[in-house]
Amino acid sequence: MNYGEIVSKVKDINLAPEGDLKMEWAKNYMPVLNSIREEYSADKPFEGITIGMALHLEAKTAILAETLMNGGAKIVITGCNPLSTQDDVAANCVKKGMEVYAWRGETDEEYYENLNKVLDAKPDIVIDDGADLIFLLHTQRQELLDSIMGGCEETTTGIIRLKAMADEGALKFPVVNVNDAYTKHLFDNRYGTGQSAIDGILRTTNLLIAGKNVVVGGYGWCGKGVAMRAAGMGASVIITEVDAIRALEAKMDGFRVMTMNEASKIGDIFITTTGCKNIIGAPHFLVMKDGAVLANAGHFDNEINKEELSSLAKSVKTVRYNIEEYDLGNKKIYLLGEGRLVNLACGDGHPCEVMDMSFANQALSAKFILENNGKLENNVYEIPYEQDLRIASLKLKSMDVEIDELSPEQRKYLADWKEGT
Amino acid sequence: MNYGEIVSKVKDINLAPEGDLKMEWAKNYMPVLNSIREEYSADKPFEGITIGMALHLEAKTAILAETLMNGGAKIVITGCNPLSTQDDVAANCVKKGMEVYAWRGETDEEYYENLNKVLDAKPDIVIDDGADLIFLLHTQRQELLDSIMGGCEETTTGIIRLKAMADEGALKFPVVNVNDAYTKHLFDNRYGTGQSAIDGILRTTNLLIAGKNVVVGGYGWCGKGVAMRAAGMGASVIITEVDAIRALEAKMDGFRVMTMNEASKIGDIFITTTGCKNIIGAPHFLVMKDGAVLANAGHFDNEINKEELSSLAKSVKTVRYNIEEYDLGNKKIYLLGEGRLVNLACGDGHPCEVMDMSFANQALSAKFILENNGKLENNVYEIPYEQDLRIASLKLKSMDVEIDELSPEQRKYLADWKEGT
Amino acid sequence: MNYGEIVSKVKDINLAPEGDLKMEWAKNYMPVLNSIREEYSADKPFEGITIGMALHLEAKTAILAETLMNGGAKIVITGCNPLSTQDDVAANCVKKGMEVYAWRGETDEEYYENLNKVLDAKPDIVIDDGADLIFLLHTQRQELLDSIMGGCEETTTGIIRLKAMADEGALKFPVVNVNDAYTKHLFDNRYGTGQSAIDGILRTTNLLIAGKNVVVGGYGWCGKGVAMRAAGMGASVIITEVDAIRALEAKMDGFRVMTMNEASKIGDIFITTTGCKNIIGAPHFLVMKDGAVLANAGHFDNEINKEELSSLAKSVKTVRYNIEEYDLGNKKIYLLGEGRLVNLACGDGHPCEVMDMSFANQALSAKFILENNGKLENNVYEIPYEQDLRIASLKLKSMDVEIDELSPEQRKYLADWKEGT
Amino acid sequence: MNYGEIVSKVKDINLAPEGDLKMEWAKNYMPVLNSIREEYSADKPFEGITIGMALHLEAKTAILAETLMNGGAKIVITGCNPLSTQDDVAANCVKKGMEVYAWRGETDEEYYENLNKVLDAKPDIVIDDGADLIFLLHTQRQELLDSIMGGCEETTTGIIRLKAMADEGALKFPVVNVNDAYTKHLFDNRYGTGQSAIDGILRTTNLLIAGKNVVVGGYGWCGKGVAMRAAGMGASVIITEVDAIRALEAKMDGFRVMTMNEASKIGDIFITTTGCKNIIGAPHFLVMKDGAVLANAGHFDNEINKEELSSLAKSVKTVRYNIEEYDLGNKKIYLLGEGRLVNLACGDGHPCEVMDMSFANQALSAKFILENNGKLENNVYEIPYEQDLRIASLKLKSMDVEIDELSPEQRKYLADWKEGT
Repeated sequence: MNYGEIVSKVKDINLAPEGDLKMEWAKNYMPVLNSIREEYSADKPFEGITIGMALHLEAKTAILAETLMNGGAKIVITGCNPLSTQDDVAANCVKKGMEVYAWRGETDEEYYENLNKVLDAKPDIVIDDGADLIFLLHTQRQELLDSIMGGCEETTTGIIRLKAMADEGALKFPVVNVNDAYTKHLFDNRYGTGQSAIDGILRTTNLLIAGKNVVVGGYGWCGKGVAMRAAGMGASVIITEVDAIRALEAKMDGFRVMTMNEASKIGDIFITTTGCKNIIGAPHFLVMKDGAVLANAGHFDNEINKEELSSLAKSVKTVRYNIEEYDLGNKKIYLLGEGRLVNLACGDGHPCEVMDMSFANQALSAKFILENNGKLENNVYEIPYEQDLRIASLKLKSMDVEIDELSPEQRKYLADWKEGT
Repeated sequence: MNYGEIVSKVKDINLAPEGDLKMEWAKNYMPVLNSIREEYSADKPFEGITIGMALHLEAKTAILAETLMNGGAKIVITGCNPLSTQDDVAANCVKKGMEVYAWRGETDEEYYENLNKVLDAKPDIVIDDGADLIFLLHTQRQELLDSIMGGCEETTTGIIRLKAMADEGALKFPVVNVNDAYTKHLFDNRYGTGQSAIDGILRTTNLLIAGKNVVVGGYGWCGKGVAMRAAGMGASVIITEVDAIRALEAKMDGFRVMTMNEASKIGDIFITTTGCKNIIGAPHFLVMKDGAVLANAGHFDNEINKEELSSLAKSVKTVRYNIEEYDLGNKKIYLLGEGRLVNLACGDGHPCEVMDMSFANQALSAKFILENNGKLENNVYEIPYEQDLRIASLKLKSMDVEIDELSPEQRKYLADWKEGT
Repeated sequence: MNYGEIVSKVKDINLAPEGDLKMEWAKNYMPVLNSIREEYSADKPFEGITIGMALHLEAKTAILAETLMNGGAKIVITGCNPLSTQDDVAANCVKKGMEVYAWRGETDEEYYENLNKVLDAKPDIVIDDGADLIFLLHTQRQELLDSIMGGCEETTTGIIRLKAMADEGALKFPVVNVNDAYTKHLFDNRYGTGQSAIDGILRTTNLLIAGKNVVVGGYGWCGKGVAMRAAGMGASVIITEVDAIRALEAKMDGFRVMTMNEASKIGDIFITTTGCKNIIGAPHFLVMKDGAVLANAGHFDNEINKEELSSLAKSVKTVRYNIEEYDLGNKKIYLLGEGRLVNLACGDGHPCEVMDMSFANQALSAKFILENNGKLENNVYEIPYEQDLRIASLKLKSMDVEIDELSPEQRKYLADWKEGT
Repeated sequence: MNYGEIVSKVKDINLAPEGDLKMEWAKNYMPVLNSIREEYSADKPFEGITIGMALHLEAKTAILAETLMNGGAKIVITGCNPLSTQDDVAANCVKKGMEVYAWRGETDEEYYENLNKVLDAKPDIVIDDGADLIFLLHTQRQELLDSIMGGCEETTTGIIRLKAMADEGALKFPVVNVNDAYTKHLFDNRYGTGQSAIDGILRTTNLLIAGKNVVVGGYGWCGKGVAMRAAGMGASVIITEVDAIRALEAKMDGFRVMTMNEASKIGDIFITTTGCKNIIGAPHFLVMKDGAVLANAGHFDNEINKEELSSLAKSVKTVRYNIEEYDLGNKKIYLLGEGRLVNLACGDGHPCEVMDMSFANQALSAKFILENNGKLENNVYEIPYEQDLRIASLKLKSMDVEIDELSPEQRKYLADWKEGT
C-alpha cells in the first residue's frame, strides 16, 4: 500500500493518532534514549544510511526507530513476531515517515514476506530480535550480504544462534551483542520480563496469584525475574532447570526445584522462559490439574508444545480474550496468547523504563557499527563496559540518584597488589 | 427498556455473549460459591423473596446474583460506582433473568436513578457495597423500611457509616457486617486489593514499578495488601498514616513512613486506600515531581481531591485509556481512572478466587437474615466464626490443602487452666 | 543467701558487673520505657508497694524491674522458665537493691521454691509471664489472695489460662491482659519472636537457612513472625495449622500448608509456636529425615514431646552447646535448648526495642492497677487503645518518624454517616 | 611448642575435644566435601605432598584440611586474620596430626610469624585467603618460589591482587581462582556472607533489625547477600556504590541508593562489603546518629577507618563482648568485632553448607594443580564449568533435588542456528 509518499503495509493508517498518544506516553519515560536522540538530532550521524529493523513493533520500539530517523537514517521496519505488532503504533510510524510492513496476526507466510520487504530496501545496518532477519540474509538473501555494514541483536535466543554461526565461520558481517550488555540483560530480561509476564497473565486471566503454585521453566535472567515477581505477588514458586548451578541458586533463593514431570502434577500456572523448545509437552499435559494455565515468556512459541496439546484435546475454544481452552475430556487446560510471548501477546510488552536502556544500547551500537565500518571482523561483538556505564549513569541521573566515586587513594589501593593487610 | 420479559436498562443487550464467557470463566475459579449454589439450587430457600443489590457489577458479582437467583430469589441489581459496571456482564444478567439497571459511565443523576429503580422493586433483603442503597432507604425512601428484612454490607466504608447510624439509633433494620468476616477482610481487602490495584496500574500505564517510590496512603488491610504487592514488584514503598500503631507496623515491615507532605516530594506513584477523604490535595500536588501518577484504591473517588487538581491545572487531556494528564505548567500529573477504584475502573476488579469467599459470605448472610427474620435487632451483626471457618475450609479443600485437627487431649489442654508448666 | 542487706539467691553475685553492662546496653535501646522511668522517678507512684515478678530474667526485664523500683516499689523477682535466667543480670539486680531468686538451670523443684519465695514477700501486685505465679496464688497460696491488688500477664499462654479461670469464676483478683495490647502482641510476638527465634537457631547451629524446608507449627502472631523471617533468610517455609482461616492466610502468603504428618517427611528445621502441646511427637519423629533440627518458640517446653523423643532414642548426647543429638539408630535428630523457648534458651531473648514496648505496657498497667485498686472486678482487663497509641507514638518519635493527623474536616467525615458518595 | 610429635603453636591443646565436636557437627552438613574425601581417602593423591594453608581457622576449614590430609598430604596451617581463629578447632587440628600455628588475638607481628612458619615447611601447594601467603612468597620468601607447584585463592580481595600481579608479570607460579567458581562466589559470597553477617550482628547486639535503616556499602555478591537478608529481617536497606550498573540494580531491587555522605545521616546499622578501603571515615562519623552501629563484612579491617574513628573519640570502652563504644562527646558510635569480618569475629563464619561447596572447589583445585604440575603458566586459572557442575550436582543430590535433562532433540535445537522460528 502507499500512504502518502511512503510505501508501507499496515492494518489501518487511521489508527495513527492512537499510536501517537502511545508513543508520547512512552517517550515521557525513556530519558536515556531521549538524551541520545538530542545528540543524534543535532549531529545526524546516520545521514544517507538505511536501517532495517525487525523488532516487536510497539510504542517503545517506535521511539527507538524515531531516534535513529532523527539521526538521519531511513527506517524500514517489520515485527519479529506475528502477534506482537500494535497496529496503531505501526500506523503512526508510517505517518512519521518510516517504511513499515507489520500488523498483528500475520500468517507465517506474511511474516516472512514482511521480513523480505525490509531487506528489499537494501539496509546498511540491521537491527534484529531473534535473528530472523540476519538468518534470512544468510540463507535466501545472500545477494545483499556485501552491502551490510553490520547488525545488532536484541535477545538471548538470537545471540545463541549467531554465536553458533560465528563458531562455524558462517557469519558474514559483524553483529553487536546488545543482549549481553549489563544495562540490557540485567534489567530487560529480569525486571522487564518479570513484571510484564505477570502483568500479561493478570490482565488476561484476572486470577489470584497469591497461594498458587506457579511453575517457572528456566532460571536464567528471565526466569529469575518472573520467579521474583510471582513470589512478590504471593505465589509459591517452583523452578525447573537443566543446569545444576542455576537449580541450586533457585533452591537457595527459597524456591522449590523439581523436574517438569513432578511440577506438572501440582502447578496452577506455568510460565516458560528457557529459550529452548518442548519445555512443556504431552507427558506434562496428561498429569496436569484441571484448570491449569499455561503461558510462555521465552522468545519463540515452541516452548509449550501446542501441537501435542491440540492433539490431546477433544475441543478448543476461546473463552476469554487471549485464552484458549483445551478440553482434554477429563480436564481443561488454558493457553494464553497462543503460547507466544505473554508480555507482548497479552500485554504491552516491557515497561518503558526498561526498554529505555535496552534501546539506548541499540541506538549506540548502530552508531558503533557505522563508525567502525570496515574495521570489524565477521564476529559477535560485546558492548564495551563504558557504554554500559554511560547508560546506567544517565538512568540514575533521571531517577535523581547520586552515587559515590572512588577517591584517587581508593583507586590506587584497588590497583596495587603490593598494599597488604 | 424491555428486553424480552424483564424491564431493565443496560448499555447494549447484544453484549451478553461476551458477558457470558466472563461469567463462565469466573465461575471456574469460585468453588466455595459453587458449593453453596448447589445447596441453594436444591433447597430454594429464597423462593418468593426479592433481593435488591448494589455492587460493582462485573462477572464475579453476577455469579453471586445468579447463586441467589438459583436459590429462588428475584434479583434486582445496579452498580455501586458509576465507572465499575461491565456492560457485557450487565447484559448477560438480563439474559439470565435478572432485572438490571447499570452501565459504565453513569452520571451522578443516573447513578441515583438506578439505585431508586432497585428500591422500586420493593426488595425484602438488600445487599450493599458502600451503603448507598441502605442510606437511600433511610433518607428518601423511608416508606420501604417496614418491608425490609435486613441488609448485608460489603465494605469498610459502608460499615463505618452503618455503625455510626446504629450508634445514633438511626438504623431501621438489621445489617450483617460481611466486611469484617475474616474470610472477607483478611483476603479481599489485602490479597484482593493488593493484587488488583497493582494490576490496574500496570495495564493502564505500562510503567515499571521496580525502583519507583510508591506512596501508599493508609496501612489498613487494603494498604497492607497494596504495600506488600508494590514491594513484591520491586518498589521502594512509603506509607502515610494517621494511626500511630499502624504507622509503627509499617515501619517494622521495612517501609518508610512519613507525612504525605514529605512523601509528595519524592513519590513516583501514589495509591490511596484510606476510606477517608482529601488524602491528596492541593498542598501535595504543588510539591510533586513531574510525571507523578495518582491512583485510588479506596471506596470513594474523593481520596484524591480532583477539584483541587483541576483548579491547579492549566489543561487536562486524556493521554491514554484511563489516564488524564493534568498539566500544571511546570509539571504534569497523571490521574488514573478518574480517581475511582483503580482495580475496577482500570481493571477487572478483585480476582475471582478472592471474591469467591467474600460473596460466599454474602450468600450465607442473606440466608441468615431470611432465617432470622423478626428475631434480629436493628443493629450491625458480625459474621459468626463458624461461618468463617466453613468458608475457609471449603476454600482449602478446593486447593487440595489438608490441615491438622486438635486431638481431644490438645483440646482439653487448651481449655484447662489447671494444667501447669 | 544474704548479699549485703537483701536476702536473695543467685548463681554468683560477682557476675554483677557483666550484668550491669548488659543492662546499660539494653537501656540505650528502650526509649519508651526510659521516658516512663523519668516520670516514675519524679512521682514515686509505687512508694510502699511490693511488686512480685516472674518473668524471663535477663537484661530487658531487669530494666522494667528497675523502672518500677525507681518509682518507689520494692521488687521481688524470679524467672518464669528454668533455662532463661541470665545469671549476671540476676546478680546485678541484687546489687541494684532487688530481692532475687533465680538462676539458669533450676530444677523443677527449685523453680517452684523460687516462685514461693516471691510470694513470701507478700506482693501487692504481681507481674507474670505464663501465669505460674498467679496460678500458684490460686491453688497453694490462697492465704495471700486477699492482699493482692491485681496482676499483669505478659503472654498468650497465660491469658488463655486466665480467661478460662475468669469464665469459671475462679479468678480472685483483676488481671491486666498486657499480651493483647497492640503494641505488645503485634510487635513482640511477631517481630520479636520472628527475629529472635531465627537468631537463636543461627547462633546455635551455624546452619544455612537458605534452601531449607523450615516447618513452622502454628500461624498465629508468633508463627507469622517466624515464617516471615525464615522466608527472609531464604527458607522454603511450610506451615501447619488447626485453624482453617489461619491456614488459608498462610497459603495466600505464599507458604506451603500441610499436616504435620506430611511436613515431618520433608522438613529440615522445625519451629513450634502454637501455645498448645504435643505438636511434634512420636509419629513425626519416626518419619523425619536424618539430621532434622527441632526448636520451640512457644511458651512451654511441651510443644515438642521430649518424652517420646527420648524413648525412641538409642542414645542422647550434647554435640554442641545447646544441641542434644537423639540417635534413633537409623537417623539422628537434633533438639535445641532442650525444647525450651529457643530465643531465650539459645539466645538473648527478644530484641531490646521490642521489649521496650511490651514492658512499657507492663509499667503502665501496674500503675493502672494501683490507681484503680478496689474499683476493678476479678476479671481480665484489656489495655485501653489510648495507652497503646501513647506507646506507639513515643516509639515513633524515638525513631524520628512523623505521621499525619486527621484534619477536623476528615474527622467529621469519618464520624458522619450522612456524608454520601 | 611440641604437642606429642607435631611442632605447633596453639592457644591451649586441651581445648581439642570441644573443637572435635565442632568439626563433627560441621562434617554432618558438608556432603560434597565428604564425597570428595571418600575418593581421596581411597586414592591418596597427595602422598608426599606438603600443603601450606592460610585460611580462617575454624571447623569447616579444618574439615577441608582433614580431607586433604586423608588424601595423603602433610598439612601446615595458619589463620588469615588475627581474630578469626577458633582455638578449640586449632587444638583439635594438632590432635588430628596437622602442624598448626594460629590463635585468636594474634598481634600483627605474630600473624606474620605464623605465615612464615607455614612457609618454613616448604609447601608444594599453597591455599590462601586474601593472598597474604602468596604475597609473602613473592616478596620476603622468594627462595621458596621454585619449589611451589601452585596455589589456590579463596576470595575476591586476593584475586584482585593476584590478577594485578599476573598482569605485571610478577606472578611466579600458577594460581587457581577458586573465588570465581560459580559454586563459590554465587553461594559463599551471597548466601554465606548474607546470613552470617546478619547472624554476627544479631548475636552481638541483640538489636531489632526490623524498621532500622541498614546501610550496606557495596552491591557486589556480598553486598547483594547482606542487603537481601537485612531486608528479609525487616530492615529498610540503603545501598552505596561507586559502579553505576550495580547502583541501578540495587535501585531496581527496591532499595534506596545514595552516597555514603547522605546515608551516614540516617543509617542505624552500617555494613561494609566492598573489598576497598576507607568506605566509612571521619566525614561520615561526624554526621552519624547517636547509637549508630558499624560492622564490616569485607575481607580486611580497613573498610571502616578505625584510626579516624579513634582520633575523633574522647573515650573508647568495651560495652559488650565484641562491641567497642566510641564516645565522640555528642554521640556514641558502636564498632563490632574491631571492624574485622563480622561473621567471623562475631560469629562462626559462613554456614557449613556454603563452605561445603567453596571448599570442595579448593579440594578439587589442589588436585588440579598437582595433576597439571609443570603444564601450567604463571597465571590465574579459572575453574572449569564441569567442576562447578559436578559440585552443584552433588549438592542438589544431597538435598534430594532432582532436575531435568536436555533431550537430544533439545540439545540439537540449542546448537543449531539453522532451526528457525
